[in-house]
Amino acid sequence: MENLTKTARTTVKRAPKRGIYDKKILYKILDAAFICHVGFIDNHYPVVIPMACWRINNCFYIHAATNSRLAKQLRTDSDVCATVTILDELVLAKSAFHHSMNYRSAMIFGPMMEVKDAKAMNIILQAFMEHVQPGRWQKVRLPNKKELNLTSVFALNLDEASVKIRSGGPVDDKKDLQRDVWAGTVAIPTKD
Amino acid sequence: MENLTKTARTTVKRAPKRGIYDKKILYKILDAAFICHVGFIDNHYPVVIPMACWRINNCFYIHAATNSRLAKQLRTDSDVCATVTILDELVLAKSAFHHSMNYRSAMIFGPMMEVKDAKAMNIILQAFMEHVQPGRWQKVRLPNKKELNLTSVFALNLDEASVKIRSGGPVDDKKDLQRDVWAGTVAIPTKD
Repeated sequence: MENLTKTARTTVKRAPKRGIYDKKILYKILDAAFICHVGFIDNHYPVVIPMACWRINNCFYIHAATNSRLAKQLRTDSDVCATVTILDELVLAKSAFHHSMNYRSAMIFGPMMEVKDAKAMNIILQAFMEHVQPGRWQKVRLPNKKELNLTSVFALNLDEASVKIRSGGPVDDKKDLQRDVWAGTVAIPTKD
Repeated sequence: MENLTKTARTTVKRAPKRGIYDKKILYKILDAAFICHVGFIDNHYPVVIPMACWRINNCFYIHAATNSRLAKQLRTDSDVCATVTILDELVLAKSAFHHSMNYRSAMIFGPMMEVKDAKAMNIILQAFMEHVQPGRWQKVRLPNKKELNLTSVFALNLDEASVKIRSGGPVDDKKDLQRDVWAGTVAIPTKD
């Protein structure tokens, strides 16, 4: 299994015990996600925008309206950090301090390059539809030329990435284990 | 109802038709979220990290290990964009182009300041537990001095924020409405 390259740019390391550098695990996390949070620098300030996302092989994709601020931004300064997080469970412990959450997350670093080739765009957008609902591309009306002109696709290579996962129950101090309070993992509550 | 202040820093505007500047709506989105994505600039590159989050009044909070990279970073350069996104549904249309997602999102901009006062920290951490599971603070072992020393809390004022929401079904072109493919909204599929 190929390891992910870590370069000097990846200056923020995740906590080592939850850091995993394995492409199969990275791909599985990305394939389970429908959105990522794309961070970029605009006028010296950080900006984070949620975007739909999908993967083909060793590339990660987003799309945006051709004239959107994000598309214009990426054409000016393509350096991003795209982070995918799937929040799985709340971890309730017997002490306040040991509460946690179970999640799978991936941070991808690099330049996000625009895909301009029409044939490539078609393949990439079809893969997006497959990700959203397999088989649907064969049923819907496909994008016409005007719609494709309104759509920009950007690609991020997956060689510079890190993964962080927490799973399992709470890890309480021994002295707290007898405390009369339920502990364990629960689904993420949905709030309106 | 108070409007959110938009300053020159908020240079990335959301699409106007989905942009909403109303604090009640902002608060409701934040209160429904368990994580945010905090974007900051580290060594001239953007970095986006998922963090647990919660709100009290007009302030938004995260916590981090005192010696974590994020805590050190925020003490060096506190400017962040913290983005909360609640993904509600996939929106399946009759044309590929009009597929979308229903979501509620908020972007908050500003300096994220460390809370150092012990009494304030206690109130803020209690509010976090209330957010995770109401009433639990009264049952669990509360943080001791050592644990509090290992925990840093950071606050972000909610005056500089923007909200973006999509709800409702697909909006297809009239000419596609007769097409023989199901269209509507579906829950977000869960993938392992």
